[in-house]
Amino acid sequence: MDRVAIIGASMTQFGQRDGWLRDLLAEAATDCLDDTGVAASDLDHLYVSNMASGEFEGQTGAPNMLAHDIGALGAYTQRIDQTSSSGGAGLYAAWQSVASGASDLTLLVGGEKMTHESTAEATDVIASLTHPVEYKHGLTLPSFAGLTARHYLEKFDAPRESLGKVAVKNHKNGVDNPHAQFRKEVDLETVLESPIVADPLRLYDFCPITDGSAALLLCPESVAAEYTDDYAVISGVAGATDTHVVHERDDPTVMNGVVESSERAYEMAGRGPDDVDVAELHDMFTILEFLQSEDLGFFEKGEGWKAVEEGVTDRDGDLPVNTSGGLKSKGHPLGASGVAQIYELYAQLTDSAGERQVDADVGLACNVGGFGNCVTTTILERP
Amino acid sequence: MDRVAIIGASMTQFGQRDGWLRDLLAEAATDCLDDTGVAASDLDHLYVSNMASGEFEGQTGAPNMLAHDIGALGAYTQRIDQTSSSGGAGLYAAWQSVASGASDLTLLVGGEKMTHESTAEATDVIASLTHPVEYKHGLTLPSFAGLTARHYLEKFDAPRESLGKVAVKNHKNGVDNPHAQFRKEVDLETVLESPIVADPLRLYDFCPITDGSAALLLCPESVAAEYTDDYAVISGVAGATDTHVVHERDDPTVMNGVVESSERAYEMAGRGPDDVDVAELHDMFTILEFLQSEDLGFFEKGEGWKAVEEGVTDRDGDLPVNTSGGLKSKGHPLGASGVAQIYELYAQLTDSAGERQVDADVGLACNVGGFGNCVTTTILERP
Repeated sequence: MDRVAIIGASMTQFGQRDGWLRDLLAEAATDCLDDTGVAASDLDHLYVSNMASGEFEGQTGAPNMLAHDIGALGAYTQRIDQTSSSGGAGLYAAWQSVASGASDLTLLVGGEKMTHESTAEATDVIASLTHPVEYKHGLTLPSFAGLTARHYLEKFDAPRESLGKVAVKNHKNGVDNPHAQFRKEVDLETVLESPIVADPLRLYDFCPITDGSAALLLCPESVAAEYTDDYAVISGVAGATDTHVVHERDDPTVMNGVVESSERAYEMAGRGPDDVDVAELHDMFTILEFLQSEDLGFFEKGEGWKAVEEGVTDRDGDLPVNTSGGLKSKGHPLGASGVAQIYELYAQLTDSAGERQVDADVGLACNVGGFGNCVTTTILERP
Repeated sequence: MDRVAIIGASMTQFGQRDGWLRDLLAEAATDCLDDTGVAASDLDHLYVSNMASGEFEGQTGAPNMLAHDIGALGAYTQRIDQTSSSGGAGLYAAWQSVASGASDLTLLVGGEKMTHESTAEATDVIASLTHPVEYKHGLTLPSFAGLTARHYLEKFDAPRESLGKVAVKNHKNGVDNPHAQFRKEVDLETVLESPIVADPLRLYDFCPITDGSAALLLCPESVAAEYTDDYAVISGVAGATDTHVVHERDDPTVMNGVVESSERAYEMAGRGPDDVDVAELHDMFTILEFLQSEDLGFFEKGEGWKAVEEGVTDRDGDLPVNTSGGLKSKGHPLGASGVAQIYELYAQLTDSAGERQVDADVGLACNVGGFGNCVTTTILERP
């Protein structure tokens, strides 16, 4: 079967932005099309990854608005929501549109506009994705992260400092990402002395609330070279679900959605964890980078923290993780994040990552919805 | 390429229901699986069509909740939103999941829980799908319908009574649908003397606000017979977008999304309008049944009203339309409606429509989002 190629990618400045979701989506979409030299009117499918524009802005119908704003009137439009992993789910949907033969040219645009809400309001919208039996007892996503972090540190005899080092590493990477929300290094002491949010996790263990958008243009691999020399191929993509009630999981330090979605993606790509040269992980909370790096098979369970301590996942390490700065420094506009992960891999695999460039032929992105409730894993390769 | 089959279908009672969206989704999903003898744990993809559970209930993450509630933990889950045509979009997504080779067994469940809101609140959520330039001037979907109806009646010299006859026909059909919200006939006088909503349209020209859910089980045609003898095949499915600003359309009596999505679906199926034996159209407003019946190519532009007058679209006519009772009498739970259209075609093509049964080998469903802003057309056939 013909594989699916990514022939263009863009992302807007992440951070606190003026305008509304429609403005951010149109900006990313236009940048992506302009860079690739494709007209919006040539698109046959236009997908929007977005969790909650209805709740955040009182405006739904974002895909139709985007088709209007960029002039993609002929395209089929649809919104994809998989909560905080809507971007990864959108990539999977866009892949399906091409792989099924339905589409010759699909534009996927992910975005979210959040910063006009207070942190409490935004957190409330995000918390609506959890199971009410937990939410009503105060178990929001940050509190799950705190509980899991404490359990992980005790179970694997890991120092609290190791979590802080995830934040330090990702902030350092973010300095070289012109689109990142925070382009400043932080030292370990700052992280460890920042205000407690969900003990033992502190403010700098958490990603910020962010506005932003990112876009990807997909077509069959067989015609990719007609558009550009700079393309990458989706060799594996899959998703999986874990228990919606988080406390029902046998082992809180294992994210089954990560395990299963990556097993499926590896099988599809004919690859394994050892083949991966660069990875974008969903570091909404620092502890999640440990869990994913283990559940993806990069490191043994309980040893992800050591890899960070030893610099294995640094930009110049054996397996650079979150060269983009991750959600931690880049920001986390829900529907955009999974798309922006692929943007970073695309940049790395087409040698256009600038200061962030690493040596890589195979990249992996893991996009986590909720507290691992739904997960997509994508493997991208040079042609 | 292997085609995609529908091997099971279900719908809940539509109307004013107790419980929440999760209850309705689980009911439809369980019925569909039980009828087909498939275990939820065997599903690899679980898609939920839903427009606005976040706005209506303050609860998102519906697909994960459903996977939890029915025990489909291994499946990939995703929500599909295309506003009022989310059900048709869900079918297209589910078709893509199988046609791309990603899935061997996909369950699509559409649903919406609305009646706990006041009509004004529900209308406000629905209106959020329109372009703000129109919404802020008071142009909600019902007002578009009123303007379009007046224009149609004048342009094509059609009598006001012809619109009323759509309501009379569909209510009559709904009497024999045990799942319909309204199972009562109405006479033309009642329709024509009901309160004005958007002149010239009156209360009985509009579908109600409804709770409900419907489900479909899909697999490759090559293995369909292993599950059941009663299956139907998706021979064509496609979507298209029209202008998001409704007043930008050249001809208000033409819905380009219907024209283009049906042209694509006909081409895929190798069929034309004359091949269709039974159709489910999106009669959210009576005028929409005229427009679609013309834009799908069943009748010449401006003559759809005559077909209703002459009984062509009656259950015993040459081309029965809305044997289910349509949105008009069955109800319109946004995310469920497009799925329930396919439920009706599936019933007709597997000879399980009971009192509503007509003689049909090819069925067509047209699901309209917004005021034709986004449309999907599906063609279903006997194997």
